[in-house]
Formats: sequence, C-alpha cells, structure tokens
Amino acid sequence: MKTKPLILVVNDDGITAPGLRALIEIMNEIGEVVVVAPDSPQSAMGHAITINSTLHCQKINLTNGPQLEYSCSGTPADCVKLAVNELLDRKPDLCVSGINHGSNSSINVIYSGTMSAAMEAGIEGVPAIGFSLLDFSWNADFNPLKRFIHKITIKALKNGIPKGVVLNVNFPKLKEENIKGVKICRQAKASWVEEFDKRTNPMGKEYYWLTGTFVNKDKEEDTDEWALSHGYVSVVPTQFDLTAHHSIKHLNKWNL
Amino acid sequence: MKTKPLILVVNDDGITAPGLRALIEIMNEIGEVVVVAPDSPQSAMGHAITINSTLHCQKINLTNGPQLEYSCSGTPADCVKLAVNELLDRKPDLCVSGINHGSNSSINVIYSGTMSAAMEAGIEGVPAIGFSLLDFSWNADFNPLKRFIHKITIKALKNGIPKGVVLNVNFPKLKEENIKGVKICRQAKASWVEEFDKRTNPMGKEYYWLTGTFVNKDKEEDTDEWALSHGYVSVVPTQFDLTAHHSIKHLNKWNL
Repeated sequence: MKTKPLILVVNDDGITAPGLRALIEIMNEIGEVVVVAPDSPQSAMGHAITINSTLHCQKINLTNGPQLEYSCSGTPADCVKLAVNELLDRKPDLCVSGINHGSNSSINVIYSGTMSAAMEAGIEGVPAIGFSLLDFSWNADFNPLKRFIHKITIKALKNGIPKGVVLNVNFPKLKEENIKGVKICRQAKASWVEEFDKRTNPMGKEYYWLTGTFVNKDKEEDTDEWALSHGYVSVVPTQFDLTAHHSIKHLNKWNL
Repeated sequence: MKTKPLILVVNDDGITAPGLRALIEIMNEIGEVVVVAPDSPQSAMGHAITINSTLHCQKINLTNGPQLEYSCSGTPADCVKLAVNELLDRKPDLCVSGINHGSNSSINVIYSGTMSAAMEAGIEGVPAIGFSLLDFSWNADFNPLKRFIHKITIKALKNGIPKGVVLNVNFPKLKEENIKGVKICRQAKASWVEEFDKRTNPMGKEYYWLTGTFVNKDKEEDTDEWALSHGYVSVVPTQFDLTAHHSIKHLNKWNL
C-alpha cells in the first residue's frame, strides 16, 4: 500500500471507554485513524439505527495522538453510517470496532453494538473486525491483546477479508503468556436463560430488571466458546446474509 | 393438537398499530393468543435489549377479543424475553411478529425490530415468523394478506419450522387477486445508500437526519426482492447462527 491505510475506529461503550483508547493506540501504529464513537454507552443496542430523531456529531480530541475523533449521539451502526457517508472524504480501508468491555462470543453477537458497527461497515463494503475482551470491568487490562490485534489487523489489510464476511474476535481474560494462540471458529449454539428481577417502585408500581444466565450446551471443539474457555483467542467469520440456505429445499415442500 | 396452540403475538410498531390488530384477528381464529407489544413505536431497533434501565409491563385490553394483552416499555426483543420467561405460564407453540408497516426484505432484516422479536423467539426455542407489508402507511390495507398469513401459520404449526430457522415473510402492496403466490427465497444482496440531511438548529448547532436510498444490484430470480417486485409473497428462512461457515477454511490459511 503506497499511502497509509485509512482506519475507521468505532465502538459501543462510548468515546471515553478505555477499550476504545487501547484500540486507537494500536491502529495509530498501522494507519491513518479516524474515530467515530457514540457519546454515551450503547451496549446491547443490536443493529438499532436512528430514523425518528436527529443525530449530532462533534469533532473532539480526548487524548493525544494523530487520530481525528468525532463524538456522535447515535447508535454504533449510526456512527458507521455517518462516518462512511458524511464525515470521511474517502472510503476507509478497514473498520475496527471495540475493544468491547465484555464478551461478544456465541449468541452475544446478535445483541452486540460492537459487532453491529462492524457489520454495518461490512454492509457498506468496508472490511471490518470487531474486538472484544471477556472482562466487563472498565479497568480491564487490554495490554495482553495488543500483539494479537496488531497481527490480525495487518493480516486483514494484506489478505483482504472475504466479501460479505466480518470478523468477530474475542479474547479470553488471561495474561499474555497464558494465551495459547488464535482459533478460527464457528459461533457456539448457546443462549441466555433470562430471569426477570421483579421489584416495586416507591409509587407502588411493578417493574423489572432483565438478568440472565449464559447457558452453553454446545460442547464441540470447533466453537468460539470452546476456544475461549481453553485459552485461545476466537475468530468467528460472521455474515449479514441471514438466509438459512440449507432449509430452502425443505420449505419448498410446504407447498405454500 | 389436543388443546389450542398458544400463540405469542409481538411487533415493533407498538401495541396500537393496525398491523398488530390485523395479526391478532387472524391468530384468534387459530389459537389461544397472548400479545406482548412495545408501548411505543420501536422501528429499526435491530436486536437491541434493555440492560441498563428498568422495564415496565401492563396488562391492557385495547380491542375486543379473547386475546390477553400486555403493553411493555422495552424493545421488541425485550417483549419476547418478558413474555417467554415471565408472563406466560407455558412455552408458546408459535411466535408471530408484525404485521410490520413497511418492508423487512433483503438487508432490512438486520435493522428490523419485527424480525428481531421473531429471532429472539427462535433463540428461545419458540418457532417464529415475522410478517411485513411493503406499505409504510398507518392505514395500510392488511386484508389481502389474511388468507396467506392464515395458511403459512397453519403449515408452520403442522410441519414445524426447522430448528435454528425463523421465517421472514414479506408481502407486496397489491390487491389480493393480484398476488401471484408464495416463493421461498434467499435474502437479496442489497443495501442502503445513506444521505445525511444536514441542518442547523435554532441555537446554531448542526444536526443530521438519516435518509437513504435502497439499492439492489442483485438481479437473480431466487431473491426476496425479485419475488416481491414480481407480485409474489416472499418467505426467507433466516438464521441466528451468523457464522460464515464457508470462509473458515480460507481464514485458516492466514496462520494467525
């Protein structure tokens, strides 16, 4: 590549999140960096977009470094749409999302704001990767991830990511020397069993908090859950063509 | 089936939407109906869930009929979680979502609150179908759809929907006699080209409205877009395993 690659950095934990700062630092070593991130936390926003209200966007500079930064009022997917179609003067060579504070492995991919931002970039034709660490803490240690993220990013820029595919990369919460390597995986067939915590407000009205337990009955060794629980970084190629191609033949027998 | 099937009815346009009312009417002919719908419109909410604020839910009765109805403060996916894990005393035999006022064909499936509710049911192990009409109008005519929705629902209850698959059904805006039939399709590879309408507010601050044009370059005859534009009802089997299985082999060559 003659010029430095243009890298769009987004996230869902918001512009101040330490995971985003860690990702900016790594990307500054690789390319020209533009950050477009939500002005407030947007976890579990899925692929929401803002169609019935206005969007605000402000150029800011939160930390030192060569990157350009924009803080936006929208969802993670909105940030990518704004970046690609309004803020940037050329199409980015890569979009990286994260580093998310918390897991986006298995079924979590579908609720994830981090991955929806990466997916949105993929839909817009921009190669994209979402990075997440299995540690919800605001003070999570992102240092053990840096070498891996650097390598995966360089490889993605060099090899290109297959069209229609977005990478979902999750890291176990381990010291660098204890991470065994990287595995290309499929999404484990796991889900959440919800428990609603029912309470009564001071006015006597009932309300709920959504809580839940993650349950994984998929014990095969080719899944992201297996990789993560055995000390590996998981890379799941994900797609936004949701068609269950294998069941088209079966459904044709319904004679609708 | 000895007893009437238990059918959970949800949507994203909100509990008062005429599309929901039309769906309730059809389902009342088939089973025991419980409605759990957002108390306000939740279009384009994708698969957002509410994890950082409280949820409210109220038993109401908006129209006559044997159905039970709950109005909830959350997203479409929240409504399904609440229904299955808190409000219903047994697992529903089917979840139907819609009838959405507007298209959820092609890439729209990923932004859709209607389909996220159906997907959430699928994840919870409940067979699920999303229904949408290509007419954004609040006064859209849902009558031409009734016969088709009735038939698809009966077939789904009788045959079962393959595990891990959720049906995305879209209807063209046509009179009943002009609908040519039903086609099982794949999701067309189309996307939106965004245009941000940039304005200045009375305080002199810039803001944006997200607008866009739907662009479909996928002209094959096995897509939902082809079916809909040729007078057919489209049925796309969709899945929440987002793994791009075909690219795992390719990515293994990266030697990460």
